[in-house]
Amino acid sequence: MQQAFWSEILGTAMLLLLGAGVVANVILPRTKGFGGGWLLINFGWGLGVFAGVYVAFKSGAHLNPAVTVGLLTADQPFFQMKDDAGMVTDSIDPTFGNAMWYILAQMIGAFVGAVLAWLAYKKHFDQEADPAVKLGVFSTGPELRSYAWNFITEVIATFVLVFVVLAFGPTPSGLGPLAVALLVVGIGASLGGPTGYAINPARDLGPRIAHAVLPIPGKGSSDWSYAWVPVLGPLVGGLLAGLLGLAYIY
Amino acid sequence: MQQAFWSEILGTAMLLLLGAGVVANVILPRTKGFGGGWLLINFGWGLGVFAGVYVAFKSGAHLNPAVTVGLLTADQPFFQMKDDAGMVTDSIDPTFGNAMWYILAQMIGAFVGAVLAWLAYKKHFDQEADPAVKLGVFSTGPELRSYAWNFITEVIATFVLVFVVLAFGPTPSGLGPLAVALLVVGIGASLGGPTGYAINPARDLGPRIAHAVLPIPGKGSSDWSYAWVPVLGPLVGGLLAGLLGLAYIY
Amino acid sequence: MQQAFWSEILGTAMLLLLGAGVVANVILPRTKGFGGGWLLINFGWGLGVFAGVYVAFKSGAHLNPAVTVGLLTADQPFFQMKDDAGMVTDSIDPTFGNAMWYILAQMIGAFVGAVLAWLAYKKHFDQEADPAVKLGVFSTGPELRSYAWNFITEVIATFVLVFVVLAFGPTPSGLGPLAVALLVVGIGASLGGPTGYAINPARDLGPRIAHAVLPIPGKGSSDWSYAWVPVLGPLVGGLLAGLLGLAYIY
Amino acid sequence: MQQAFWSEILGTAMLLLLGAGVVANVILPRTKGFGGGWLLINFGWGLGVFAGVYVAFKSGAHLNPAVTVGLLTADQPFFQMKDDAGMVTDSIDPTFGNAMWYILAQMIGAFVGAVLAWLAYKKHFDQEADPAVKLGVFSTGPELRSYAWNFITEVIATFVLVFVVLAFGPTPSGLGPLAVALLVVGIGASLGGPTGYAINPARDLGPRIAHAVLPIPGKGSSDWSYAWVPVLGPLVGGLLAGLLGLAYIY
Repeated sequence: MQQAFWSEILGTAMLLLLGAGVVANVILPRTKGFGGGWLLINFGWGLGVFAGVYVAFKSGAHLNPAVTVGLLTADQPFFQMKDDAGMVTDSIDPTFGNAMWYILAQMIGAFVGAVLAWLAYKKHFDQEADPAVKLGVFSTGPELRSYAWNFITEVIATFVLVFVVLAFGPTPSGLGPLAVALLVVGIGASLGGPTGYAINPARDLGPRIAHAVLPIPGKGSSDWSYAWVPVLGPLVGGLLAGLLGLAYIY
Repeated sequence: MQQAFWSEILGTAMLLLLGAGVVANVILPRTKGFGGGWLLINFGWGLGVFAGVYVAFKSGAHLNPAVTVGLLTADQPFFQMKDDAGMVTDSIDPTFGNAMWYILAQMIGAFVGAVLAWLAYKKHFDQEADPAVKLGVFSTGPELRSYAWNFITEVIATFVLVFVVLAFGPTPSGLGPLAVALLVVGIGASLGGPTGYAINPARDLGPRIAHAVLPIPGKGSSDWSYAWVPVLGPLVGGLLAGLLGLAYIY
Repeated sequence: MQQAFWSEILGTAMLLLLGAGVVANVILPRTKGFGGGWLLINFGWGLGVFAGVYVAFKSGAHLNPAVTVGLLTADQPFFQMKDDAGMVTDSIDPTFGNAMWYILAQMIGAFVGAVLAWLAYKKHFDQEADPAVKLGVFSTGPELRSYAWNFITEVIATFVLVFVVLAFGPTPSGLGPLAVALLVVGIGASLGGPTGYAINPARDLGPRIAHAVLPIPGKGSSDWSYAWVPVLGPLVGGLLAGLLGLAYIY
Repeated sequence: MQQAFWSEILGTAMLLLLGAGVVANVILPRTKGFGGGWLLINFGWGLGVFAGVYVAFKSGAHLNPAVTVGLLTADQPFFQMKDDAGMVTDSIDPTFGNAMWYILAQMIGAFVGAVLAWLAYKKHFDQEADPAVKLGVFSTGPELRSYAWNFITEVIATFVLVFVVLAFGPTPSGLGPLAVALLVVGIGASLGGPTGYAINPARDLGPRIAHAVLPIPGKGSSDWSYAWVPVLGPLVGGLLAGLLGLAYIY
């Protein structure tokens, strides 16, 4: 479990470094990717997941409390190691206690990854820009603020993520971590329009804390009034996906 | 067969949620992906297929009456389950009756998916916009209206989809659902220009019904005069693909 | 060999239908993909190769005289069929006569595919547009006309295609037809800037003939003075790749 | 080792031909890809890696001194050849001497690839353009010059590259060379904004030398004052990745 703890930290840090990085590249002033468009952002996050999943090979690479909650709800093991003959040699059970450790590691990793992305783009954060732009590198925010509908959008988008991840099992392919990466590209392309697809409480809250504590010139508010939406919405989406998974998949 | 029925509903709903979602993201007002371009739309639909195929693992993931018609014409099983030794343990035969069940499930799923996409983008549908834009999230429409030529375009594009899907069999790869996803990206990129590539009667008619019944402010006409083109064109394309498949592949 | 002949026709027709189609989508007036950008064109051609390779499973899917010339030069079989135990059960030898049949089939297929693309975009070809735009859907043309340097560009780009295809053998992956599709995306992105990357004599000459004979309103010249460059350049590139393949790979 | 030397030359030349090529396509005047955007550049480089890795199958395809340094630090073999039963039949040990040969080959290959890219775009280099644009095809440069922060950005981005490459081992997939290609797309999208992601000393220094010696009209300075950043930054990033690899992966 200790290895899994480090694994989730490293993987989620990788995810946020690349995820926050691509947003910085597209919206911060004077970057090479400035104005690069939504598909570029989608690929950045998707390939952030890709890299993070490879790195987190000791924990099953949840990288996301909503995934952890979905597996817990569906009573599926968090992680399994198999030998060459396909026998399970080690596994982490889906208990509430283990889930808490996973989620703590994800929060720490997301915070660390956001700090690294800030370091990589330090000089661009120091340029003058709308405070909302600087916050936008760290955390999501809605285009049309409506807590109820923003919440529903996050529930639906996270449901898609977790339910399809649960459905990966019965259709083996040679894609490895690419499958979930492409799924995240697709969710961003299709369902990211209203709220920026947090679909992951750690991805949003960890960096928001980083935004609050880092010495960024002209950074403005961390928008805490919205912060519960990208935490609670994904948790509910993961829960619903786990329940439908129980009924349909397993 | 009952499991297959639910499987086609879930898979086609997933396809439409992501497919209608990406169009909403690109054309509805004030979304994050507004004006994101044709390639973004192509990836959204392709990855919608990707997600839908994983979800519909209990039915062979047709998700499209044209695919069902193509398999029926080519007399190929709708679905096969194999054990580890490659022996077929269960299958759904290509009969007219089974095809009707598949198509009904696809229609229901497409309707449900479009409703979910509307919920995810609710506040953006409530913005002022050209009624044609709002319909465009649900159903396809031609850039240059000509029922005959629009029909031909849909026949050609759907022929490509179904014929290449039939040709997947002889060239096994480790791509799993990614192969058909990329094929749909390619068809959209290459043949979607004139009509918006319905290439799937359920994908077009189910959401058009949703458009007709949902309480969308300022939604305008559902353009029923065009509705037969993206239904009949794909069915003919699937039929032709099945016939050429019989002659060339099997 | 007769099956291989049909296979190359079908596969190359598929390639040109999707390849000419994406160019039509991006440059013809009033399409949904108008102005969609170079990456969209690259994906359209790459996924045209993807679809064409699946379809041409009975001939080894050359789809390109430069590939045929490369295999002939490197003395590699044009096509092999293996049974489950990996034993070769059938093959087509790399002889000059077989190469002629392959190339003839590729020319026919490219012509047919271009005609189908024209049918799919018929109403858009009937719109008013620069004659060079209409020709651009069928055949390549340089941005800066210089027969010598355009020739060199085509040699280099085709060398990359054929040499990497020859190098696929020693690194097996589960990508199947996706590997060559992505390679074509990459060559287009990187080396398509000066001449539009014909990298395939059939891809350029077959559609140029189609352009010359089809009744397209306001179509203008078929630019025959340039036509030898995208034929001879790729053949030389394929030859050089075959020679280096002999020295380095085999 | 002699074969590996040629393999690294060929692979790195392929990488630079496609990598420098895509930049030429996007920023040089009057190309077909002009203004094609950051994602196009990312795909060009990623697929340049893809092609280069296939070509360099006799050396393990490092193509990058930072990768060589990372493997040396982590004490992992530079290259292994296995027979069908998975037994290692040949290997290249991670010694300082072998590393020097690899790096020399990578430098030569990068120089050759840049020259080929210049030949492919010769007429476009002869057009009038900002000297910084012409240099930009060959070597990276920062958007906001700050040697310290540019160095940190290169360290972080290269750390991601090498650490994830080291983490590929424990998660086998059927992606083959596509995995590292996508990783490079992702690093470019996410961390390329400030400095243009050299993440490879040979990729930057070899072409800079080519820029200095080639007869390019109006080429201006080769910006040698910046040249150490994309050499030293990636070496440090590779070293750190090797160290963390030792602690976490092996």
